[in-house]
Amino acid sequence: MMFTTLLVLGLLATSSYVFAASKPNFVIMLMDDMGWGDLGVFGEPSKETPNLDQMAAFGMLFPDFYSANPLCSPSRAALLSGRLPIRNGFYSDNAHARNAYTPQVIVGGINDTEILFPELLQKAGYRNKIIGKWHLGHRPQYHPLKHGFDEWFGAPNCHFGPYNDKNTPNIPVYRDAEMAGRYYEEFQIDQKTGESNLTQMYIEEALTFIEKNALSDTPFLLYWAVDATHDPLYASKKFLGTSNRGLYGDAVRELDYGVGQILQKLAELGIDSNTLAFFSSDNGAATYAKTGGGSNGPFLCGKETTFEGGMREPAIAMWPGKIRPGTVSRQLGNLMDLFTTLLELAGIPKPDDRIIDGISLTGAFFNNSNTDRPIFFYRGNTLMAVRVGNYKAHLWTWTNSLTEFNSGVNFCPGQEIENVTTHDQVDNTAQPLLFHVARDPGEKYLIRPSSEEYKQVMPGIQQIVNSHMEYLVPGQPSLNYCDPAVQNWAPPGCLKLNKCLPAPPSKMTKCVWEH
Amino acid sequence: MMFTTLLVLGLLATSSYVFAASKPNFVIMLMDDMGWGDLGVFGEPSKETPNLDQMAAFGMLFPDFYSANPLCSPSRAALLSGRLPIRNGFYSDNAHARNAYTPQVIVGGINDTEILFPELLQKAGYRNKIIGKWHLGHRPQYHPLKHGFDEWFGAPNCHFGPYNDKNTPNIPVYRDAEMAGRYYEEFQIDQKTGESNLTQMYIEEALTFIEKNALSDTPFLLYWAVDATHDPLYASKKFLGTSNRGLYGDAVRELDYGVGQILQKLAELGIDSNTLAFFSSDNGAATYAKTGGGSNGPFLCGKETTFEGGMREPAIAMWPGKIRPGTVSRQLGNLMDLFTTLLELAGIPKPDDRIIDGISLTGAFFNNSNTDRPIFFYRGNTLMAVRVGNYKAHLWTWTNSLTEFNSGVNFCPGQEIENVTTHDQVDNTAQPLLFHVARDPGEKYLIRPSSEEYKQVMPGIQQIVNSHMEYLVPGQPSLNYCDPAVQNWAPPGCLKLNKCLPAPPSKMTKCVWEH
Repeated sequence: MMFTTLLVLGLLATSSYVFAASKPNFVIMLMDDMGWGDLGVFGEPSKETPNLDQMAAFGMLFPDFYSANPLCSPSRAALLSGRLPIRNGFYSDNAHARNAYTPQVIVGGINDTEILFPELLQKAGYRNKIIGKWHLGHRPQYHPLKHGFDEWFGAPNCHFGPYNDKNTPNIPVYRDAEMAGRYYEEFQIDQKTGESNLTQMYIEEALTFIEKNALSDTPFLLYWAVDATHDPLYASKKFLGTSNRGLYGDAVRELDYGVGQILQKLAELGIDSNTLAFFSSDNGAATYAKTGGGSNGPFLCGKETTFEGGMREPAIAMWPGKIRPGTVSRQLGNLMDLFTTLLELAGIPKPDDRIIDGISLTGAFFNNSNTDRPIFFYRGNTLMAVRVGNYKAHLWTWTNSLTEFNSGVNFCPGQEIENVTTHDQVDNTAQPLLFHVARDPGEKYLIRPSSEEYKQVMPGIQQIVNSHMEYLVPGQPSLNYCDPAVQNWAPPGCLKLNKCLPAPPSKMTKCVWEH
Repeated sequence: MMFTTLLVLGLLATSSYVFAASKPNFVIMLMDDMGWGDLGVFGEPSKETPNLDQMAAFGMLFPDFYSANPLCSPSRAALLSGRLPIRNGFYSDNAHARNAYTPQVIVGGINDTEILFPELLQKAGYRNKIIGKWHLGHRPQYHPLKHGFDEWFGAPNCHFGPYNDKNTPNIPVYRDAEMAGRYYEEFQIDQKTGESNLTQMYIEEALTFIEKNALSDTPFLLYWAVDATHDPLYASKKFLGTSNRGLYGDAVRELDYGVGQILQKLAELGIDSNTLAFFSSDNGAATYAKTGGGSNGPFLCGKETTFEGGMREPAIAMWPGKIRPGTVSRQLGNLMDLFTTLLELAGIPKPDDRIIDGISLTGAFFNNSNTDRPIFFYRGNTLMAVRVGNYKAHLWTWTNSLTEFNSGVNFCPGQEIENVTTHDQVDNTAQPLLFHVARDPGEKYLIRPSSEEYKQVMPGIQQIVNSHMEYLVPGQPSLNYCDPAVQNWAPPGCLKLNKCLPAPPSKMTKCVWEH
């Protein structure tokens, strides 16, 4: 099941970088709610990701890689636009520091003024496919085929609820511009057993797309945005019950198998040396899902929070012959960097009419060099924290409200750091909480403001924050309004399938974002 | 710095196991307070252990490996005797469930009736050397040379305090049967900077011993018991300030370098294919030492506790040509297994007049097969917990007393699990607390006693506990008595060095073990 044929190639690869005559292909494999600590190579004790571990052995591992947001939709919008959600509009200002996303009642979606890197690649001759979860808006104007993709197989929203069509429509699954069916109808996920063939379908789609395009001269982008590790978890029959870790582990094992299949296919077709493969995840593991969620390893809290567990992501780049095998990069990376990196590798100038937050990772890839850059941790409209070098300063702290916490939603199970994992939104901007996240990855040991270290470090960080705020022009927030009428009642193609549902009258309200 | 010359050998190795004509050599590298999570291969984010990571890549990794005790002395006594401290006497019954060790006021040491594997290897013709910390008793009758070792360079006790010779003697460092000087006198550790050449000396000692014995027909045992990651931390000038993680990381890096040097030497001398190299640590990282302690990765609490963080150990076995490279064993292993394994590999029958707790790891090594066996978690005279398969049942819970905790000693910083990380000794024997440590390595999610899972699993575990207790004959406790007169006032050889100190009158009392 492992791509062992790559062994020799991997060993012969060097760090010397020679651009291929043709534009390189890109395979971006983005997991959903998978945690940093879920990979064997990042210390998951059951070591059930042999293909990813081998990808790291033949590629470059990024232990200090981040998402741009602790939640799926904004994270994905940032990845594709190269810009923080506060700039690209994938946030809400209905309330302070709230995580917002794209449930099917959302009115908004990715703004037309945003430039996504698939759009630029497409213009430069790439053939682009997204497989899996889009999450940048489900209404037709926001669809992937309107924003740079040529092909799509997957869904616009998450596959969690509704689980029947009685009161609200089940989420449609699209084949390109038209729906091919709906979750829990044509596309089954067994709520009791967790059995579903979806990951197998996503693997097949990927292999077919790669095969088809390997034969042509057209470079391609494959955005493999699979979601089996997002609640409700699922795996195919072949993988159910095979993990040491329960259903979550089954899902991870199947996705790991999929990664192996994709890398193996690239090697078999002889296009691996002209393809950058990149693996990561959209946000931290959902710790509130208990053992139904993944692992954030040694990091604090998880999804929805701006602690390390919420935004530190597993990340591996592989490119035989270009990226030196078995290397570890200390670059502070971000999913937004894919925007800048892919454009550079494709020889496409990046837009100069807007601030792009992503930096190029080519220095890291080809020379294992590091570029200084801050990592900003936003929650909705609020800059909560910033990492500069090995230091991280929390301007605001919040997990979730005490009411929600008392109702059983715990973003930091088993973890409690005084004055840090707070249930009030605590404003620390006057004297940020400082941690050294290399000595102290768990954000456990506050560096006292009276210490020499604090006094030496904090002014520089403050300057970076000030400069960031000074130049910040927040985008129009896209995630403020909800309306039951905009749900997936009658997606394009529903007539052919006789699956159109009547929409209720419009009743637009401000969305309520609890945390 | 990495033993890259081993690459080809490693890749050509297979799982077929052929005993060499001569008895194999053994190199046991035991760290002091190093945590599971300190190795890159186990997810330390800074990935600063390239040699250990490579040892894993060319050897077998044991993610489910344990010490026999959460504290150094009992753990080491168990390793060498193959028996739980409750059997070999390395415990105290002065109070319930107390961790005891061998400070220099301790009267006792390893009992003469205990058979240590070095003794049996010695009788079978092995030449044995211990480098570093002994910790099985500092009085002459307990010394390594009385218990199976031919050579010794190192100390009988920990290198922490006293730091001057005024009121109590500094710890002696021995060359074989006689002291060669004392810590903080002839063997410096700079308390301010952490600079010390000790690890370099231990590396040199190891390389010289290996070289000398490689040329002879005598098989050898090297027990490399280094201690730079035990407080007070130290590293040589070359390594100081080189880690991303502070002084603790500097110490880890130097030890990792040492491991690389040793493995490289075995390869250079062409004896690696006849040498089992094994790496592990004596107990969990000292979480109470804050960022001056190591990392237990995703596990709960640390040293001194019977949670996973206290006794889950990093473990790697390497034997080119015999152990298949890059494999992961799911065997529940224990340091005590080295006793049984090494005897088997040396063709020596194990003692049949006593219960040996260690099992043979040869099945794991050569066939990656698993043997069912429980892991017992003792604290002093008390069986606190047991792991059976992926389940762990806590019969007792305790971190430390509230008084000690309130004075600033925290064994579980940032972690708090209700009813689990208790500050009272809580007796759960009537209804043990159950966790699934594969789904839930952090012991965060109690399996409710009312659940089907609990009802299915618990009776089997209870039976294993009952059977264990039924056949248990506790050894005479060796760690009950303390006496200032027995300290290292006048170690053998002190006269030659003019370093004998006058001992005070004997005043034997029961030792006080706080936690």
